[in-house]
Amino acid sequence: MTDGTDRGLPDELLRIRGSIDNIDAALIHLLAERFKCTQAVGRLKAREGLPPSDPGREERQIARLRALAEESGLDPVFAEKFLAFIVAEVIRHHEDIAANGPQSR
Amino acid sequence: MTDGTDRGLPDELLRIRGSIDNIDAALIHLLAERFKCTQAVGRLKAREGLPPSDPGREERQIARLRALAEESGLDPVFAEKFLAFIVAEVIRHHEDIAANGPQSR
Repeated sequence: MTDGTDRGLPDELLRIRGSIDNIDAALIHLLAERFKCTQAVGRLKAREGLPPSDPGREERQIARLRALAEESGLDPVFAEKFLAFIVAEVIRHHEDIAANGPQSR
Repeated sequence: MTDGTDRGLPDELLRIRGSIDNIDAALIHLLAERFKCTQAVGRLKAREGLPPSDPGREERQIARLRALAEESGLDPVFAEKFLAFIVAEVIRHHEDIAANGPQSR
């Protein structure tokens, strides 16, 4: 994502920006795949009459992501906020499915 | 992340949850790597006296992530919210560096 507007910036900055852009592309593709999974979970739970939320599962996810964050040098508080951010979107999808049927997303 | 508390849930649900857990581990590791990059950018900009924010770069990032989201079946509005969420954390890190020096994070 280098273009004319980057002229005059240090090479090192442009190299790091290139890495950020590669990481962002990977993040977007993984998020797309993760929402496919949670949409499948939403449909399955609706079909089987299972409750939409599972507080025990969520607690285990938070504990695991915090531990993975510590291992990889990421702020565990941020990891927990990140999961909450994603889960808010998942709930929005599930509400769509509940309101508009399983074909809605 | 399967344990006794998952008993009685459909196998299909447990399989999808396993995929979600794998994707989350990958997301956490990529986010850790992304923040290493933005922290390096913050130090470099401070050293070179470059302005902390670059609105042109941010506009190009938003446009690119929205396009990648559309390609991969992710809501582009969510992709944009996701970038804003990450950038808010990056700004918090840069404020830390500005307040406490380059060794603070």
